[in-house]
Amino acid sequence: MDGTMWMHHPRTASMREFLSDAQRFGQLRSIHTHFTFAADADFLENDIRVKPDLDALGSLGDEGWYCVRAILWAANYELPKTVTASRNPELNQAGVILSCGASLQWEDGKVATFHCSFLTNLTMDITAVGTKGTLHVHDFIIPYEEKEASFYAATESGFDDLVTKWSSQPSKHVIKTDIPQEARMVSEFARLVADIKFKNSKPEKKWPTISRKTQLVLDAVQASIERGFEPVQIQE
Amino acid sequence: MDGTMWMHHPRTASMREFLSDAQRFGQLRSIHTHFTFAADADFLENDIRVKPDLDALGSLGDEGWYCVRAILWAANYELPKTVTASRNPELNQAGVILSCGASLQWEDGKVATFHCSFLTNLTMDITAVGTKGTLHVHDFIIPYEEKEASFYAATESGFDDLVTKWSSQPSKHVIKTDIPQEARMVSEFARLVADIKFKNSKPEKKWPTISRKTQLVLDAVQASIERGFEPVQIQE
Repeated sequence: MDGTMWMHHPRTASMREFLSDAQRFGQLRSIHTHFTFAADADFLENDIRVKPDLDALGSLGDEGWYCVRAILWAANYELPKTVTASRNPELNQAGVILSCGASLQWEDGKVATFHCSFLTNLTMDITAVGTKGTLHVHDFIIPYEEKEASFYAATESGFDDLVTKWSSQPSKHVIKTDIPQEARMVSEFARLVADIKFKNSKPEKKWPTISRKTQLVLDAVQASIERGFEPVQIQE
Repeated sequence: MDGTMWMHHPRTASMREFLSDAQRFGQLRSIHTHFTFAADADFLENDIRVKPDLDALGSLGDEGWYCVRAILWAANYELPKTVTASRNPELNQAGVILSCGASLQWEDGKVATFHCSFLTNLTMDITAVGTKGTLHVHDFIIPYEEKEASFYAATESGFDDLVTKWSSQPSKHVIKTDIPQEARMVSEFARLVADIKFKNSKPEKKWPTISRKTQLVLDAVQASIERGFEPVQIQE
């Protein structure tokens, strides 16, 4: 299991239900995710994420990980066919990425974009748009509050007759949690270990599979940057 | 003056104040806009926006116009240097765009992306991220309500000590309006005409200038699609 804590918040399961509901959301067609934070001078100088011989994928490997995971999560972990980096990465003097973005395309026409940066205000968005519905969440990695988290869901949105306002607004869904998502993640990890140790279970495959898929997409973004923003095909 | 009605809502002036505030927003670094609606079968068959000999820019010319205008508005109408269409447009049988997207780059490293579609649920987003602040709005073209409209502004967002929640949440700003934005637009048009007719004023240049800039970017997206998603330089 990787340490992607927001996967373990009960809100994530509730958002998944919405995205999986053909009546409320339909089929996913476009997603945008945004994860940025304003790193301070010490971070930009000394953190392992800005050192080419340490966590060398920089903002892409740190923030981009969460963006790409959210995109794959929304797409039911179906890998995109093609990844094309945006022509705009910002690098530090050692060549480590401080901000970048990419667009992803699937064979069925589904598309996604993301943007990540160490250089702008803390922002954590998912916008997922389906044929029938729209999901909005602005704190998907660390919720605004520890004991609850919310998201907005809209279905078959439209206007009134004179097109001066919406006929229905997105609904806010508040999901309570007894313990923080990080504690839930550790609890899940302990459960998986105990199942192997005491119940003779085989190691589960879900977490390593989605970790690997996330890394495959990040590597493709990195490769696209290195190849002058050419599209890179994803090979499973 | 073009018919971009949301420019005339008082909320737009209030959002502009936030984006222009160096203390609250800092400098703009990334923007994403999303405008989609689920056109019905009659629209997709008969509307002028899907006819190659009528409003031939399709979703790009209709919805993309609002997205690009929002991006230029957020960037103080500074034209991007480069526009690259995403490798994903969906076209109808006559070759008219039903959905597409693009990424835009400025010389100072600022970036934007947008996505527009006739094929998914009604969605109208601006996410603008600066060095110090973040703007969110989900109904920028037609507000949820006729008499008021809101947006969310965040400044120097961060976490509590244990990183289990945010130390401050975005603030909601509600802007009331006496008459709908469309009536305000007509009123502004009448004022401009009256100034010429009765006060001997010269025609103002703001509106034709920003209309032309919007069209320049749309034309560059269209050119990028036609050139196999190559980057297109914007020439003023």
